Amino acid sequence: MRPDTHARIQDAIRKLGYRPNQAARQLKTGRIPILGLLVPTTANPFFGQLAMAMETYAQQQHGYRVLLCNTHRDKQQEAAMFDDLIAFGVGAVIVVSSLSDEQHIEAAIARGLAVISFDLAVDPNSDARHDYVLPDNVMAGALAAGHLIQQGHKRLAFAMPKGLTFSRRQKIEGFMAAIDQAGAGVSGRVVEGKSATRFGDTELAGLGYELSSSIAALDPRPTGVVTVNDMMAVGLMAGIREQGLTVPQDISIVGMDDLTLSAYTWPPLTSVCMPAAEMSRVMVDRAIQRIGEPGLKAEQFCFTPSLTVRQSVAAPPSSRKKAQPPAADS
Amino acid sequence: MRPDTHARIQDAIRKLGYRPNQAARQLKTGRIPILGLLVPTTANPFFGQLAMAMETYAQQQHGYRVLLCNTHRDKQQEAAMFDDLIAFGVGAVIVVSSLSDEQHIEAAIARGLAVISFDLAVDPNSDARHDYVLPDNVMAGALAAGHLIQQGHKRLAFAMPKGLTFSRRQKIEGFMAAIDQAGAGVSGRVVEGKSATRFGDTELAGLGYELSSSIAALDPRPTGVVTVNDMMAVGLMAGIREQGLTVPQDISIVGMDDLTLSAYTWPPLTSVCMPAAEMSRVMVDRAIQRIGEPGLKAEQFCFTPSLTVRQSVAAPPSSRKKAQPPAADS
Repeated sequence: MRPDTHARIQDAIRKLGYRPNQAARQLKTGRIPILGLLVPTTANPFFGQLAMAMETYAQQQHGYRVLLCNTHRDKQQEAAMFDDLIAFGVGAVIVVSSLSDEQHIEAAIARGLAVISFDLAVDPNSDARHDYVLPDNVMAGALAAGHLIQQGHKRLAFAMPKGLTFSRRQKIEGFMAAIDQAGAGVSGRVVEGKSATRFGDTELAGLGYELSSSIAALDPRPTGVVTVNDMMAVGLMAGIREQGLTVPQDISIVGMDDLTLSAYTWPPLTSVCMPAAEMSRVMVDRAIQRIGEPGLKAEQFCFTPSLTVRQSVAAPPSSRKKAQPPAADS
Repeated sequence: MRPDTHARIQDAIRKLGYRPNQAARQLKTGRIPILGLLVPTTANPFFGQLAMAMETYAQQQHGYRVLLCNTHRDKQQEAAMFDDLIAFGVGAVIVVSSLSDEQHIEAAIARGLAVISFDLAVDPNSDARHDYVLPDNVMAGALAAGHLIQQGHKRLAFAMPKGLTFSRRQKIEGFMAAIDQAGAGVSGRVVEGKSATRFGDTELAGLGYELSSSIAALDPRPTGVVTVNDMMAVGLMAGIREQGLTVPQDISIVGMDDLTLSAYTWPPLTSVCMPAAEMSRVMVDRAIQRIGEPGLKAEQFCFTPSLTVRQSVAAPPSSRKKAQPPAADS
């Protein structure tokens, strides 16, 4: 089903004031009206917003409650949660994880749990039996890099925590594709956090802050940086200020997620907006549909990101720089 | 039990590697190993952090899962969640709500649900049968106002959303007490959002932004502002910049919550730190203890806040102002 078809059906349901009868549903499915929800951590505002949107919608639209698990991107935690969900008689789970390894998910499906994955994509060679909901991350990376290139930037960097997840890989793919398309003279590099363990999703702003000195020290220094999410951009901007540099005059920054708070940072953050509310609704609807119809063919629901332009991007300083005397040693 | 006694017991448990036997516990209590958790919304990073801390601790320390409800501070939502928890056989719920009206909580307790309230205090005249965990909000308000007074501020404001909750009332009490104690020449006022419905907890930064024009237009204008939480401070600082004013040179700001991100705002935000991790552990421990011992006497666990000084407070501009010519009309 295409997202717009889905949206029309949901509109009709809302207009009719339809609310499923819980007793009838339980008779039909033998299931407790609870959905499982795995997120890396609700302490990251992006996942906190997503968890709120899904829980509120599941409750108001379907009368389902949500059992929450903060996985801290740990596979053991995810597998233990699947065990508990099955023991409790929960029929479906939404997994916001983006771990590349899916064996534990496949095992849970084999035991009867319906699974909806966020931010993973169907492997065309697998006979996947779960659904995938995701933004077009390749496009997100291309939008961010394209915006910087359009403003005249020629040295770009992509900043992220240590370790490739599926969605990071896709974002980098789009970022690099935009750079390749721009032709000779435009280059891009990936700048990764040093340690995988020190910065979890909770401490992304701290990671951005830490990376600011590595980025400022690069020679030649990139003039435009894309961060894999907005929290990293918030920390990166703070670190760049402490380096004595200015955003966007010295370094332009584009975030991803378009958090509510990104309109209020200094400078207000240009960011790639992922349609979180729409994706949340589709994940919940599909999870509940799949409880009733376990044989449903696996589908992928891909949503189009857009660019929210604020004030963290300007033309690069290269032309001005040549006219200035070199900075005094200090 | 005093918090430090509690902490020592928990340390001992951790050192012994004690992990409760789930089957034995279920035999004893007849309960499903799930806790209910009501928060206004996980989209607010303070509640998102709190939900993560409680869920992670409940799982790792006690083998309990958490059923989440975003209440949006709606009493009907809270009452409906209590009904569902009782129907599912859940024995205890943690209520992070701060609604002043507790009748629906009392009704749930009468039906056998153990309740731990966050940010409410025991009414000494009631025969409350649930526990209260909270920071000393009076002290929090006094710390924030006291810091501004110490820096020389004489015209203070306390900014918050429309509507008094229990914790807001306490914070204002402490704020006003510090002002009274400072004596003649120091004054304080409360500045409230215009509409209760437009700004929920999700949009607190937006509310702070909106209030910036009201605060800038006050005559005489306050030189020091305390916001009831950090997200409002983030929006307020953005709005003050747009008014052509500077933080802290024109207006100093003190937030409350000391969010992770408050170290990375511009300027870095001075804020009252609530010990969220410790409070989370006590709420979970006490909820689970109360399932096994429903006759436990109601207790109040009150935690001491502290001030995290960063760069959003400076001496007030009053002395400088007299030397400057009046601003031109524009």
